[in-house]
Amino acid sequence: MSVSSQAVTGPDGAPARASALEPTYEGDFVLDRHLVLESGRTLAQPTLHYAVYGKLNASRDNAVLVCHALSGSARVGDWWPEVFAPGALLSLDHDFVICINLLGSCYGSTGPGSVDAETGLVYGPDFPLVSIRDNVRAQAQLLDSLGIRSLRLVLGGSIGGMQALEWAIHDPNRVSKAGIIGVAPLTAMGLALNHLQREAIQNDPNWDGGYYLPQRPPSHGLSLARQIGMLSYKSPSLFDERFSRNPNRNGEDPWRHDDHGGGLIGGRFDIAGYLDHQGERFNERFDANSYLAIMRTMDTWHPLNGFASAQDVYSRIRAELVFIGISSDWLFPPESVRTFAQSIQEAGVRAEYREMESSHGHDAFLAEQPELVRLFQ
Amino acid sequence: MSVSSQAVTGPDGAPARASALEPTYEGDFVLDRHLVLESGRTLAQPTLHYAVYGKLNASRDNAVLVCHALSGSARVGDWWPEVFAPGALLSLDHDFVICINLLGSCYGSTGPGSVDAETGLVYGPDFPLVSIRDNVRAQAQLLDSLGIRSLRLVLGGSIGGMQALEWAIHDPNRVSKAGIIGVAPLTAMGLALNHLQREAIQNDPNWDGGYYLPQRPPSHGLSLARQIGMLSYKSPSLFDERFSRNPNRNGEDPWRHDDHGGGLIGGRFDIAGYLDHQGERFNERFDANSYLAIMRTMDTWHPLNGFASAQDVYSRIRAELVFIGISSDWLFPPESVRTFAQSIQEAGVRAEYREMESSHGHDAFLAEQPELVRLFQ
Repeated sequence: MSVSSQAVTGPDGAPARASALEPTYEGDFVLDRHLVLESGRTLAQPTLHYAVYGKLNASRDNAVLVCHALSGSARVGDWWPEVFAPGALLSLDHDFVICINLLGSCYGSTGPGSVDAETGLVYGPDFPLVSIRDNVRAQAQLLDSLGIRSLRLVLGGSIGGMQALEWAIHDPNRVSKAGIIGVAPLTAMGLALNHLQREAIQNDPNWDGGYYLPQRPPSHGLSLARQIGMLSYKSPSLFDERFSRNPNRNGEDPWRHDDHGGGLIGGRFDIAGYLDHQGERFNERFDANSYLAIMRTMDTWHPLNGFASAQDVYSRIRAELVFIGISSDWLFPPESVRTFAQSIQEAGVRAEYREMESSHGHDAFLAEQPELVRLFQ
Repeated sequence: MSVSSQAVTGPDGAPARASALEPTYEGDFVLDRHLVLESGRTLAQPTLHYAVYGKLNASRDNAVLVCHALSGSARVGDWWPEVFAPGALLSLDHDFVICINLLGSCYGSTGPGSVDAETGLVYGPDFPLVSIRDNVRAQAQLLDSLGIRSLRLVLGGSIGGMQALEWAIHDPNRVSKAGIIGVAPLTAMGLALNHLQREAIQNDPNWDGGYYLPQRPPSHGLSLARQIGMLSYKSPSLFDERFSRNPNRNGEDPWRHDDHGGGLIGGRFDIAGYLDHQGERFNERFDANSYLAIMRTMDTWHPLNGFASAQDVYSRIRAELVFIGISSDWLFPPESVRTFAQSIQEAGVRAEYREMESSHGHDAFLAEQPELVRLFQ
């Protein structure tokens, strides 16, 4: 299989880049034993949903692991197609690319919407905290089952980068190189943003402590959570350029008093219409409990968890690390990423820091893929 | 009356700076006619609640108008005490300082919680959009009634600065100088932040379209709105310095799975406990409908509204203007304030831009009053 080079357009005339790249295989791997979690709880025979692109060679040494971000899926070809473009970072002629859905997600791996084999009940809010390290340990079992003993590259942005680094730390002999994009342990501001997103979901009249049925989800809360997240994924200059102070393009008027009742709400500005639309779209594809589960996975991550010192952790690393900071990233500011990379360098690790110039904010690793590819070359 | 110069400490040992400065007079002014609003609606004989400090001199030329921010009150001595310190910006020996509560607020002026004289019903969500200019026109009637024909200074931060500039534009012969702190017309990101705060309130199970009774307010929504606002008022570095990734000081543990049920929520980090506390405190003192009303006043403000050109508006100004940008302000970035000041200078106005170095973000005009005072000297 190869990337289609012809221009495909979707129903709205925009390039429909998602459809050109199909996985060689997409399926489930069921762990043959309980996964004992760092939190002390266990997941009974969890499923990992995964997708692969390209072919594993005879010596099984051409594997690349891509780790997805918060709301991503195993179908990396759908959300990172330009990384597979001819001459770009990954080649379907030479690489065997594997991407594994995070535990807690709603894209196929065991998550809050799954049935707990031990109780026969849907987990719902009783789904346990699964750490980044737990995910890496589970993923390692899948790679073992495929006979993959070496990874030429492990790569991811945001929470995907957290996984890439944990791979380099906890499976040092398997990983040759790790690409860690737009990420560092969450700062107080990052923790604050996740806290507010959690509250947005919990305040929804349909929340019901997380014991909702999928037919009646806390959709207003999830929409608001997504919108709060989006403010931290984008940049003020990008918003200004695209939306300025324009009234909503559907004709609402922010100066009229009767569009949404009374004088307290009024017609929306264009940025508000855009954000609401993004919130609605997110509800079509994501689940609130999964969102909460993965935010907690992200919140609690710090590579030093459970270790006495930075030296103890980072000196395990054998891989070459490349950190990428994004100039306009507010959630993981480039200074944080650079400082984080330096703290790892100081333990004697080959860790390089590179910076992506972009007005797209945190989302740049998805929105400006050619520039990202260039930085890795 | 004068500012107490002795050190007063509160129950927690921190300076109890709020209690030392009482107004000379605090009361209500009722407009003797309907206020026709820019939105086309009217307010029937609205009340302006105001506070004054110091004494009006015989020639009535020592008046200073201070305009408060979103959740502020007319009691400027409570929230800006250091601006009255000996040798600081305002002197109770020489100045007659007046501060007037915004229409829409819940601190005494007519707002959503007031009874509409025409219907005999509480306005609730039917309270109309009151613009910054509407507020200035109403405030001018109060000053007229006090015989104040000149203001040596009009001063305010955030939405208070919006009022100060509108005063200089629309009552040019009354204003000698205006201090406009940490403000410019809201950018797309600012509009987005207000939009999300509105949604937070509307998603509350008690919201009921705004027709709630004060005994059963949308308190979770207002708390979340306040917390969203606070992220934009503070700075990432300040949060990191104060809270880092510490667990909540009440003993909650973010890594435990059973603090708040299941593995989806968990114990809070310190920043989350702090924000929740701020949200709760805000509910003790503010009303959700008032918050919505004043956010809309802020959203819709642009000095060019209703004018053909910047020259048409700004050439009306006779006052000397001082703009203050705050280095770490995310809501009104210093570049926005500087650019805004320049656009007014270009119309031939004496407009100066100064910058406040602070890690406190937008809130610096409240949190670092001595530095603010210094910039005005």
